[in-house]
Amino acid sequence: MLIPDADGMILGCDYNPEQWDRAVWREDIALMRELGVGLVAINIFGWAEVNPAKGVWDFSGLDEIIGLLHDAGIRVNLGTATSSTPAWLTTLHPELLPVAIDGTRRFPGGRQAFCPSSPVYRRYALALVERIAERYGDHPAVALWHVSNEMGCHNALCYCDESAAAFRGWLRERYATIGRLNEAWGTAFWSQRYGAWDEVLPPRATLSTRNPAQVVDFHRFSSDTLLDHFRAEQEVIRRHSDRPVTTNLMNAAHIQNMDYWSWAGDLDLIANDHYLDDRLDDPTTELAFAADLTRGLAQGRPWMLMETSTGAVNWQPVNLAKAPGQLLRNALTHVARGADAICFFQWRASVRGSEKFHSALLPHAGTDSATWREAQELARALGALSEVTGTTVRAEVAIVFSWQSWWAANGDNLPSQNVRYLEQVHAAYRALRAAGVTVDVVAPGADLTGYRLVAVPALYSLTESQAAGLHRYVEQGGHAVVTFFSGLVDEEQAVVTGGYPGLLRDLLGVRMDEFTPLVPGDSVRLSSGRTGAVWSERGRATTATVVDTFAEGPAAGSPAITRNAYGDGTAWYVATELDQLDLDDLVREALDGAGVAPLAAGAAELDVTRRVGADGTSFLFAINHGDHEVELASTGVDLLSGERLESSVVVSAGGVRIIREDAAPVLVPAGDAGISREEAS
Amino acid sequence: MLIPDADGMILGCDYNPEQWDRAVWREDIALMRELGVGLVAINIFGWAEVNPAKGVWDFSGLDEIIGLLHDAGIRVNLGTATSSTPAWLTTLHPELLPVAIDGTRRFPGGRQAFCPSSPVYRRYALALVERIAERYGDHPAVALWHVSNEMGCHNALCYCDESAAAFRGWLRERYATIGRLNEAWGTAFWSQRYGAWDEVLPPRATLSTRNPAQVVDFHRFSSDTLLDHFRAEQEVIRRHSDRPVTTNLMNAAHIQNMDYWSWAGDLDLIANDHYLDDRLDDPTTELAFAADLTRGLAQGRPWMLMETSTGAVNWQPVNLAKAPGQLLRNALTHVARGADAICFFQWRASVRGSEKFHSALLPHAGTDSATWREAQELARALGALSEVTGTTVRAEVAIVFSWQSWWAANGDNLPSQNVRYLEQVHAAYRALRAAGVTVDVVAPGADLTGYRLVAVPALYSLTESQAAGLHRYVEQGGHAVVTFFSGLVDEEQAVVTGGYPGLLRDLLGVRMDEFTPLVPGDSVRLSSGRTGAVWSERGRATTATVVDTFAEGPAAGSPAITRNAYGDGTAWYVATELDQLDLDDLVREALDGAGVAPLAAGAAELDVTRRVGADGTSFLFAINHGDHEVELASTGVDLLSGERLESSVVVSAGGVRIIREDAAPVLVPAGDAGISREEAS
Amino acid sequence: MLIPDADGMILGCDYNPEQWDRAVWREDIALMRELGVGLVAINIFGWAEVNPAKGVWDFSGLDEIIGLLHDAGIRVNLGTATSSTPAWLTTLHPELLPVAIDGTRRFPGGRQAFCPSSPVYRRYALALVERIAERYGDHPAVALWHVSNEMGCHNALCYCDESAAAFRGWLRERYATIGRLNEAWGTAFWSQRYGAWDEVLPPRATLSTRNPAQVVDFHRFSSDTLLDHFRAEQEVIRRHSDRPVTTNLMNAAHIQNMDYWSWAGDLDLIANDHYLDDRLDDPTTELAFAADLTRGLAQGRPWMLMETSTGAVNWQPVNLAKAPGQLLRNALTHVARGADAICFFQWRASVRGSEKFHSALLPHAGTDSATWREAQELARALGALSEVTGTTVRAEVAIVFSWQSWWAANGDNLPSQNVRYLEQVHAAYRALRAAGVTVDVVAPGADLTGYRLVAVPALYSLTESQAAGLHRYVEQGGHAVVTFFSGLVDEEQAVVTGGYPGLLRDLLGVRMDEFTPLVPGDSVRLSSGRTGAVWSERGRATTATVVDTFAEGPAAGSPAITRNAYGDGTAWYVATELDQLDLDDLVREALDGAGVAPLAAGAAELDVTRRVGADGTSFLFAINHGDHEVELASTGVDLLSGERLESSVVVSAGGVRIIREDAAPVLVPAGDAGISREEAS
Repeated sequence: MLIPDADGMILGCDYNPEQWDRAVWREDIALMRELGVGLVAINIFGWAEVNPAKGVWDFSGLDEIIGLLHDAGIRVNLGTATSSTPAWLTTLHPELLPVAIDGTRRFPGGRQAFCPSSPVYRRYALALVERIAERYGDHPAVALWHVSNEMGCHNALCYCDESAAAFRGWLRERYATIGRLNEAWGTAFWSQRYGAWDEVLPPRATLSTRNPAQVVDFHRFSSDTLLDHFRAEQEVIRRHSDRPVTTNLMNAAHIQNMDYWSWAGDLDLIANDHYLDDRLDDPTTELAFAADLTRGLAQGRPWMLMETSTGAVNWQPVNLAKAPGQLLRNALTHVARGADAICFFQWRASVRGSEKFHSALLPHAGTDSATWREAQELARALGALSEVTGTTVRAEVAIVFSWQSWWAANGDNLPSQNVRYLEQVHAAYRALRAAGVTVDVVAPGADLTGYRLVAVPALYSLTESQAAGLHRYVEQGGHAVVTFFSGLVDEEQAVVTGGYPGLLRDLLGVRMDEFTPLVPGDSVRLSSGRTGAVWSERGRATTATVVDTFAEGPAAGSPAITRNAYGDGTAWYVATELDQLDLDDLVREALDGAGVAPLAAGAAELDVTRRVGADGTSFLFAINHGDHEVELASTGVDLLSGERLESSVVVSAGGVRIIREDAAPVLVPAGDAGISREEAS
Repeated sequence: MLIPDADGMILGCDYNPEQWDRAVWREDIALMRELGVGLVAINIFGWAEVNPAKGVWDFSGLDEIIGLLHDAGIRVNLGTATSSTPAWLTTLHPELLPVAIDGTRRFPGGRQAFCPSSPVYRRYALALVERIAERYGDHPAVALWHVSNEMGCHNALCYCDESAAAFRGWLRERYATIGRLNEAWGTAFWSQRYGAWDEVLPPRATLSTRNPAQVVDFHRFSSDTLLDHFRAEQEVIRRHSDRPVTTNLMNAAHIQNMDYWSWAGDLDLIANDHYLDDRLDDPTTELAFAADLTRGLAQGRPWMLMETSTGAVNWQPVNLAKAPGQLLRNALTHVARGADAICFFQWRASVRGSEKFHSALLPHAGTDSATWREAQELARALGALSEVTGTTVRAEVAIVFSWQSWWAANGDNLPSQNVRYLEQVHAAYRALRAAGVTVDVVAPGADLTGYRLVAVPALYSLTESQAAGLHRYVEQGGHAVVTFFSGLVDEEQAVVTGGYPGLLRDLLGVRMDEFTPLVPGDSVRLSSGRTGAVWSERGRATTATVVDTFAEGPAAGSPAITRNAYGDGTAWYVATELDQLDLDDLVREALDGAGVAPLAAGAAELDVTRRVGADGTSFLFAINHGDHEVELASTGVDLLSGERLESSVVVSAGGVRIIREDAAPVLVPAGDAGISREEAS
Repeated sequence: MLIPDADGMILGCDYNPEQWDRAVWREDIALMRELGVGLVAINIFGWAEVNPAKGVWDFSGLDEIIGLLHDAGIRVNLGTATSSTPAWLTTLHPELLPVAIDGTRRFPGGRQAFCPSSPVYRRYALALVERIAERYGDHPAVALWHVSNEMGCHNALCYCDESAAAFRGWLRERYATIGRLNEAWGTAFWSQRYGAWDEVLPPRATLSTRNPAQVVDFHRFSSDTLLDHFRAEQEVIRRHSDRPVTTNLMNAAHIQNMDYWSWAGDLDLIANDHYLDDRLDDPTTELAFAADLTRGLAQGRPWMLMETSTGAVNWQPVNLAKAPGQLLRNALTHVARGADAICFFQWRASVRGSEKFHSALLPHAGTDSATWREAQELARALGALSEVTGTTVRAEVAIVFSWQSWWAANGDNLPSQNVRYLEQVHAAYRALRAAGVTVDVVAPGADLTGYRLVAVPALYSLTESQAAGLHRYVEQGGHAVVTFFSGLVDEEQAVVTGGYPGLLRDLLGVRMDEFTPLVPGDSVRLSSGRTGAVWSERGRATTATVVDTFAEGPAAGSPAITRNAYGDGTAWYVATELDQLDLDDLVREALDGAGVAPLAAGAAELDVTRRVGADGTSFLFAINHGDHEVELASTGVDLLSGERLESSVVVSAGGVRIIREDAAPVLVPAGDAGISREEAS
């Protein structure tokens, strides 16, 4: 069970009762019951409400709403309310306001207007948590604790003097001596050597470019500082409550400051906030990737979608609505990838404040609206999926994802500013998804045993031991597909010399001399006719077989794609940003070589995954994001329609099928039997 | 009369004698007389000249130039010189320097380097005004007082601590209690509740997005603060002088921080600065709109064009010259819309300073120049228009324009950042202008009695009483054309719920559920074949007739254009940004329905307006902005050429005709008799 | 000899031994010897190494490396190490950190994190230099002193209070009285008059636009301040050493803050850093221009290329590698234009810090790399060019280049922001280069005697005496080609009135009234069919012959190209940005008229120059940047191949020929004999 006593799939939401009067509360709770809402997050932004002035506490509103929810049989996800400081506190202690990279303060008027390293903030925040935990720690309605909110969404990187002091403390712990710090940061360069700890500063704005190791360490410190704050709140709560404690992560294309691999172990359950990002070329790929990443953080266990939207958000340049049916498809994409709870921000659309044009379960127009009807449809679907709860997703393929490489690879003074880490990860993931395989997202250094193939896109920075792990995995029979910009620097951002990519040179059986990136708009033809862009490099294969060669451009004649037999396994290397279709083909070839069969293939827009119970019961999720119906081989019962399927199922355009399978079947995608195979797991 | 004893149309200019030596003064005054300059604005930037150090006063130069002008029979528009502080003052009181949104100071070296809320600035400024008003208050040369200059052009929004204190005072006056402030600003959102007034700050830079109600109130405060400063100077002047007091407004596409509707009542005459903005797609439409808006501020009375340019300005990325004849056409476009004075910045082109490449009546090249010859042509034209002075423009159509909606609609966190308020206003205005009708620009909440049709483009934010006024207007037989993004929020920026557009739902007879904005570059076809972009929305007509429907896109099937019979009138709603030609057609249809006939039609580039005297004498202005001559039915005398016209007049390409009409005639545009009609007024 | 006892062409490099351990030092020195490195720059960023804490000195490392280099027979270019302050110093004296235009500090973590006007910085820096000069001033290995590094690359413009004080001191020296300052800056404009020196500030960020004369004076001050620092270090060194003292200039498209014309006289030899700038449309033209400019600074004497790269740099958005052979071609392009030393940044590629992806002689891949092999090829070539050392380049054509016009012409509030000074200079230079002539780059006001033609592109700001010099030059028979935006303002940025271009009106025989710049993307046809863009202007020829006329656009009918007989010479004026091919043709016509023959013509991508010894021995450099081989008439010996050439030489695609000529020959470019001519010098 995701949370204690939870029964079946959870439909939940954020609720901000402080924005409404009592009459609305009663209407809201009645409508929540009508819709089937089972979990409500409250007190997320309640600090000023329960603690309206220094030393003044007022829990009457919170008491009342918790009571009302409890009476209605709705469980509470109780916020600690520490993410947005009240005005009295920043008035009293302006020194806790965050400072930007240029040394200017940032002010209240939004949210998260505090420095995560501020001891004053910490003191007041924990006092608040103490009060709340004490009061509601064993309240029967409370099912879950929600520490702060979207930690680090805005304020992850603070450059103030308090942050500087905390950064120094963190560095001292990491490096012990100033000599080791100097070595790690390469301060022999540009006369940056430190003589004493108190000379060290955050990587504030410089006239020239900043020390890259300092920048990455500041990212690590900032992530750790927020995690440390989480732990501090959690510790307070633990003293008063036995309910699980979590916070809402943000696996998203525009959030990169927290290394959640280091966070995941501390959370009692993994919860993610996910909003479709229509600024991306392919938001649906990002959605699936984020869900798989969240499952990875949960180590395969069921997880919670803590926030998503019924429709448009309010923070993109153009906030697109969802197409009819998309609410259901998006939500069930999360369920298909392991979510056991789907919660929305928020219950009732605000009428004031920055988020008033953010969609909600109950829109401005009220229940006589398409949004409400789609929410009802989702509620029915979740109701039909009770038996799926607790089942898990199994994958034969993994993709390595690293926040630390993201930080390091998107810095200044790299060979090209156009190698964007997340784009490279998404491209590899997209190819795997197009091949119809299920993908686990794993940390660098994760145990790869059991995976048939591992994709390693643009893994710029990794430790020697992580590199050794990759070598070992392949040596023992694994298959790896590594793309350019991987293995160039170690965790101190030091280049590994002797031929690129230094850390993975042996594994890949190549030795590259020189990078020859391409300017935007340029592309190069490979000998096979494939096309590359963004990147090329000069060098040669040592032990690898050259699969394809740059036929033109600055690296003409050098290998562009290689395949290396290493131990019992195979390591592919792709030295350019292949055209997506070419990458799709190459990945399909590598999957073939690794003996990985697709769950379904031949219909790129059909998303097929499977959840399997401890007892072996399996549920096939087929979500059709396309405009055409697709036929899929399957025998079992469609949980949504109740329909019995004898050998195949038609997934209508935009439709979803969730089939309790009679047995793990042979999957034959309609019209493309040629590439169908027995499922291997 | 616009100013006391003014006789006929005024040709005027700014003059900065402090930049020149005495020999030049004499040459300048002789040339002014030669050209026919009747009004000269001086002492606009004279603070450092008359008050070169603390407590030191030197009026000798000012005495002399006023004397010289007076001797030459030229009237003086006397500046109070407070818009640009002298270096000694900001050295003595650096705390009066303005502060940007990120808390950094802005420095002297340009102009307007002061905080409008600074009490120190106010004290020194009023002492200066006192001296000047005392000395010249009853000088016979002084015809007009010119307070400060282009107030708020650069420094309208100051975020310093003085501004914070003043903002709190303003809020206290508006809201009385901190509770009302909390309610109005929706501070229940994101824990922003204030416990005491001293916790409130200007909307300084935040890490996340700022409170939208706070932002709009800060705009109101900032506009009111500048107005308050105007009043303070005016009050000083009044004690010493009976001449009219004004300041030069800036109705322009790039200036938005002053809500001139609230200013207009305090000005003894309305004066506008207008420079053609070649950064716009259609600068001529903006020119006409700004002139009509200025007349609106003047409540229909004659007004003054206080500044314009003979040619290029110096502050656009590329400062275009005017085409031959354009100086005359642009200037008379203002006269045609009610201006009785055309003044230029400036008399003689500077040779030093930021504005040295700004054109002038007397250019760097001297009188042997095309600019001088075009200035002479304009002077002759104004001389021929004496009898037009004092006449007014009458319109059957109004367009509602709101600075407050501009502020609110161009904030963050809106459904789309691509709904740009002024563009929507210009699009509607352009359609009315293309239809050949004369348009009044009115404030939201203005008395609409007497207008046959009112356009309401993107009027995002309005009060309940303003909304009620629109309902009443239509109920009593008026016609309204409302475009999307209107009526969404009230004056506290709170969404009006129950179906969009909340405040105008009944009027329009529609109920929209959800916004479905379009990304840039996308467009949607309507059922009729019309095209929309930027915006669409989902919903249904309640009482309205659906005129057109979204045939594709995210709102496919929802109404795109509706027409609602409401009381005795008709309210149109346009739920997308129509292609301009489609909007032109629709507006023409709405005008037909409202019984509004064009002054002239069929020649989009022919600008036709009429000024009418108290005695009924009418003057038809026909300005041909196009490349082809146009024939127009008219009988009377062309004041510019003296030509007698018996039934029609040819307006040459680029030409201007101003005809004292024998009687309000039937207007038949050449070659397009089919759509001509009797003029209705 | 460029440096004492230097023998032949020098191959050199920067070396940062502090980044490596002792074992690497020995390997490096062995490889340097193997490659033929003769000069090594060390201690460039050594401050923190030799002076690790206040008052603590450690020269052991420097002693050792200098000893090792000396033992290996390698000369030392000894850095003073003052360009990058150690952390202890900025911790102790944060007030020496630089301040940006908005008043915010910039921090350590990069390099050059100091205010050039800081007396504290100066004191500590000179103490450091004293120690180093004292210790190594007569060390036999030391061949050259390298003051600081790339002075002003990042920190040229500092706006702190120390800078303000220093700026006031500089102004007082320049203007003597505050009255003269007021006059020069035109402070009568916008009430900017200063009453006392202490009211004057640097041109910090303003709300409106800044005083242009103040801005240009601040540029002058900033350049002078850095030069003053150079002199101060030089003075210290002189007390201890008789070796030449220099610093590495940066003639580059993105560096503009130092007016090197005023620096050149103080440097014992001229050294330039040059990196190919692939952000430009035509990097090779900029390379050649920068080399000719460096020779100009050296007054024709041999100079040193102090830094260049073997391949990619690390600071462009995409850091392109060099094509095969390009390393040799680029390096010899410098030699062909007078360089007697080619040094690289740096010897061994760093593995840590901001520059780790900057190429080096010894790349990350080691000696088994294309880079190393190309470096060897260059070393061999330089070895073959010993006898070229000390010879010079002679030109009949000059182009006037002015940092002060660059500063002034790229300010705000100009007629067009699209007249970019350096682009105009490059366009004129490109035309001269396409015509196959050798070009000297000279300062405004340089003695032009002996040049047959002088190009004067966009020389916006010049003094009356400089203008008089141009008049005199043409009067006495010279030919000038002046392009638009020249001669508009004097050195106080004051417009010279009476018709544009005020300062060059008589010379050119034109009188322009009004600027009519064009928006980006627009172009205008001239009567001849030529095409112009960016700029046009209205006016007439007075004494000049109209060569071409604007046939359309805002200046239709005005002269676009004129030719004026002035005294015994001819002055051309080009009033628009001609299409490059049209400009090429026009310049060729002007060269013909001036009797200037090309060294080679007809092959635009063949770069031909000649160096001539005191004894008349001449060396023809032919560098083929193109894809096709070119044949060139020449008789002599190819120094690179040793081949004897009897009448012509084939330069292969991408190839280089350097021919010791039997005699200055008739140059007949292959296939284009028609336009060949006797060389004139």
